[in-house]
Parts: sequence; structure tokens; C-alpha cells
Amino acid sequence: MPASAFDDINWDMQSTYPSSLTQLGTLGKVIQDRLAATSGGQVNVTFQEPGAIVPALEAFDAVSSGAVQAAWSTPGYWTGKDSALALFAAVPFGPQAGEYYAWIRFGGGQELLDEIYANYNIKSLICGVIAPEASGWFREEIKSIDDLKGKKMRFFGLGAKVMEKVGVSTQLLAGGDIFPALELGTIDATEFSMPAIDLKLGFYQVAKHYYFPGWHQQSTLFELMINKDEWDALSDDTKALFETVCEANVAYGLAEGEAIQFTALKELQDNGVTIHTWPPEILDTLRAAWGEVVEEESAGNPNFKKAWDSLSTFRENYKTWSDVGYLK
Amino acid sequence: MPASAFDDINWDMQSTYPSSLTQLGTLGKVIQDRLAATSGGQVNVTFQEPGAIVPALEAFDAVSSGAVQAAWSTPGYWTGKDSALALFAAVPFGPQAGEYYAWIRFGGGQELLDEIYANYNIKSLICGVIAPEASGWFREEIKSIDDLKGKKMRFFGLGAKVMEKVGVSTQLLAGGDIFPALELGTIDATEFSMPAIDLKLGFYQVAKHYYFPGWHQQSTLFELMINKDEWDALSDDTKALFETVCEANVAYGLAEGEAIQFTALKELQDNGVTIHTWPPEILDTLRAAWGEVVEEESAGNPNFKKAWDSLSTFRENYKTWSDVGYLK
Repeated sequence: MPASAFDDINWDMQSTYPSSLTQLGTLGKVIQDRLAATSGGQVNVTFQEPGAIVPALEAFDAVSSGAVQAAWSTPGYWTGKDSALALFAAVPFGPQAGEYYAWIRFGGGQELLDEIYANYNIKSLICGVIAPEASGWFREEIKSIDDLKGKKMRFFGLGAKVMEKVGVSTQLLAGGDIFPALELGTIDATEFSMPAIDLKLGFYQVAKHYYFPGWHQQSTLFELMINKDEWDALSDDTKALFETVCEANVAYGLAEGEAIQFTALKELQDNGVTIHTWPPEILDTLRAAWGEVVEEESAGNPNFKKAWDSLSTFRENYKTWSDVGYLK
Repeated sequence: MPASAFDDINWDMQSTYPSSLTQLGTLGKVIQDRLAATSGGQVNVTFQEPGAIVPALEAFDAVSSGAVQAAWSTPGYWTGKDSALALFAAVPFGPQAGEYYAWIRFGGGQELLDEIYANYNIKSLICGVIAPEASGWFREEIKSIDDLKGKKMRFFGLGAKVMEKVGVSTQLLAGGDIFPALELGTIDATEFSMPAIDLKLGFYQVAKHYYFPGWHQQSTLFELMINKDEWDALSDDTKALFETVCEANVAYGLAEGEAIQFTALKELQDNGVTIHTWPPEILDTLRAAWGEVVEEESAGNPNFKKAWDSLSTFRENYKTWSDVGYLK
């Protein structure tokens, strides 16, 4: 057989999610398996559980310095480095998966992401997308915005800033810490992910009111982070392989996410969970609060403003198409 | 460098679309280029223009017999072989791209497709999906169902049977034959594809009324057809490469389709085209006619019924999720 044009790679990929977590972890494993299968075993990028090399939230610095070659994560974890990265993870009242990935791939999103990460010696490939999240779990029914005031809630990303605006006291807990906090009453409510994932974490055992839609996260992007020196040194063929495997993971993750929610919803209802949808007036209030958050974030960080302007312009244009193209 | 586990392949891929056609043709070229780039040049599947080896609509028989190893097409072209294949191409009032691909990948769709194609010694990989089509071009404004009666219209697939039910006389013309027929008045109207594609074919020069949404084709699947003896003889690594490149093409095609329509719509409007959306009563009439078509097709072909039942059950379940999961 002829020689292949792939580089021989033996990298570690520090995951920010455990491999046991539906989609959030399993999609990272798919990357590892597909890179190996499509390279004749030459491109080995080994999934490492959180903490195996460095703790999950130190993956950014580890990839940046080259201490680890790669990481599996979401840009939304790194807002402490640059708040603009939140816009490459999940946007309140933002695009669904197809529109979001269209912006990344053909609307200038990837180029803006490259600009930001270049400051940290990191190349990030968008390498997965999932369907909408749920809005969250509440121990008590929420009938008005007033019922939200004073509630202590686990919340992620830009949505947390919106919740703060309407009087919710938010904190960010890792997936494994949420259940005990909810059980003990340290928090009154939590959002985490989609029904199929939330089911596994058992929140339904201590909170019976499950709210939709997840206005804060209508789709979520995941990334394969690679130390930029390592990336730049790869052959064109190997780069093409990474890009192809990641693009396949986008379609795979979206399809899987869409396919596995209804069974989970049914199982939750069989376990006594009540499914609620937010009334329009609550969504309107949250949307207005999001407008304030955008103004503040844009004023505080030129990178945020630049990415927001790019995404907003794309969405305005896209709307002229989606308004007529799609059956209501 | 070590030897790769890929097979050395030099295949032809007979396309049913010219390479110059936006998405319909270009997505086929992407497959050729990506297979080569991700295999170190070992997996060569050469895009062949329609007629280069066999005429477009003879690609099925050529792949089946092994006269050509592969073809780029849509299952919707082969309803003369098995009418059930229409359900793997585009479904009137059917799923959007994410839901459709979820059925193919995780809902049993691919397995049903394999069953049908095995009868013809063909392996078909779903290898692309595009955003909604437009409903069509009319020389005169359509204000009611009565205005449709007696119109001669170019129409593709299952949607054509629906149009016949409401009194339209349909015929299927190849892309290149539509413009002259519309110009000469041989037909009064046509659907073909999405704004970016329709723009290139110039229909706006002879018909000024452009209707949406494309109820007959909210998303369209494309396929890479491979002679099954050739497919079965491939190594697992080479099969994995084909599957990965095709899955990447699904995400790529969807993103591209979503990104390029709004500019085309604007250009069409600048050229004097009026954009119309169908009133609800016309859509309701078409939906009812589609129900009749489904009954007739199901009665006439057990494979159609089996695929329809599978897709319908998946869609019913999916709806319990999408109704709550998505922001309206």
C-alpha cells in the first residue's frame, strides 16, 4: 500500500465533560473514534476525562501553553478570557442550529472566532451543535415574573445575566454538583441541558416543574481546541481530515439531539414531571432584559460588539429568507 | 510514513446535475475533493458531468450493473424503480432538514433505504441536504385555487401528484429545458429549486410572480450511490471515510443553503420579481390533497406504506418535543 499523507499524531484531548454524559461527552468520543477510523489509525487524539490531565476549566490554559495538544469544550466556558466567546456558544433568543452554523461557516463567524483565539495561541474548530435546551427545573410553579424574583438558580452563560436582570440570583455549578444543591435547597432551580441529558442527571427527583422553551440556548456550539503551533505544523491533508470530521460531527450531533428528546420527555412525565411552556409576557420581559445585557456587554468589550454586529446583520438578512421560505 | 488502511480507488461518479449548478452540482464536487483530500489522494471518485458516461437518468441502471461505480443524485429521481424512494428525497408538508436527517440517521430511515436499494445491488449514502425550495414561478398572479386549475406547470416528485389533484397539468422537465418552455409559453409556471439556484436559471426574466413557502419540499436529500459489490469490497476504514465525508456534506450543504438565499431574493426583487406567500386556505387545500396522494401511494406499494408509516410515527413523536423545545 502507498504511504499516506497524514501526519502521525498521538495527542491528548482534555474534555471538559465526562464521556458518560449524553451528547456533551459522547460527541467528544465520536471525534476520537472517527479521526482514528478515517486515518488508518494514524491520527490519534485520545479523549481524556475531566481532571485526567488538568481540571476541566483549566483546559484553555493547557491548550494555550501546549501542555496539552487539544481539548473538547464549548467556547462558552471561556468568557473569563474574552466575553465575546459567549456568542460562539449559545445566544439568548438566538439562532437555531442551521442558521447558527450558517453564520459560522459562511457568514464570517469562524473568522471572528479565529481572530479571538489567535490571541491565545489556540485554533478552535466548531465541532458539534445540539438542539435546544430546556429552560429549567423549578421546585415550585412559576406563574409570573414576580415568582422568579429572589430565586436562587444555577445558570450558564449569557442567559445568567438576563436572569439577574429580572431578580434571579444565579450561580454556575458543574453538572455533578447540581443535584445535591437542588436536593439540599441551596438552589431553588436549575437549567442544565436538554431533556435526554437532564433526565440522566436526575433533577426530576427533586424538582417537578420543567419549563420550555430554552430561550437562552436554542442551539449550542461545541469546539475542538488545538494548540495553534501544533495546528500550524499539520499537513494540509491532516487539517482537511480534522475539518471534515468536525463538520460531520455537526450533522451527527444535531440529528442525534433531535432524535432522543421525545422519549426522555415521556419518561420524565411518567415520573410525575409537569411540562410547562413560558407565557408570552414572561418571554417578552426576558427578551427586553437580554437587550439591556447586549448593550452593556457591547459597551464593555469591542470584540463582543464586533461579533454581535456580525451575527445581528446576518440574522436580519437571514430573516428575509426564513420568513418566506419556511412553512409556519 | 506508514502505509494507510485505505483502498486505492479510481472510480467515476456519474452526476445527475451539471457541476455548474449551485449546490445541486457543487455539493457533488465537494465530495470528490474531500475524499481525495482526506485520503492522501488514495480515494479518487471523479465527478462526471451528466452524459459524460451515461445520461443523467440512466445513472441508476449504470450503478446497479456496475457499468459505473458511483453516482451523485437524489433518491427522488428513481420513483420509476420504487415509488417509496420519493420519501427519501422530499416530502410535501414534510420535515425540515434537522428532523429529516434525524429520521434517516437515528429513526430507521437509512435502514429502510438500504432495504429498497439492496434489491438493485446499490448502496446509497445520504450525502447532502438543502434548505427549503421555493413553491414556484408563475407568469400570472394566483389568487385562489381556481386560478391554478388548467395551468401547465413543471413539477417534480410527490408534489406533482398533489398539484394534479387541484387541477394543474404537470410535467417533469430537466433544469436546462425549463427556461425555453416558460419563455415560449409551453408551460405557464414552474418550480425548480431555491432562490439562489432559480436566479441562475433566469426564470425571473419571463415570470414575475415567485411563490413561497415550498410546501412540497421543505428540505431535500441527496445521495451518493455506489454499486453494492464495490461497496461491500471496501475496507472498514474506507467505508468510514465515505460515511464521514457524506455526513460532513450534510452540515455543509445545509449551512450553505441557509446562507445564500437572502442575497438572491434581493437580487430577484431588484429585477422586478414580486415575492408572494400562499394564503392559508390554499395551503390547507394542498395539504388535504396530499393526504389523498399518501393514501393512494400507500395502497399501491407496500414499500411506500412502510416508509411512510416509519416517517409518520417518527414525526408524531418528534412533535411532542419540537412543540415545547422551540421558540415560536
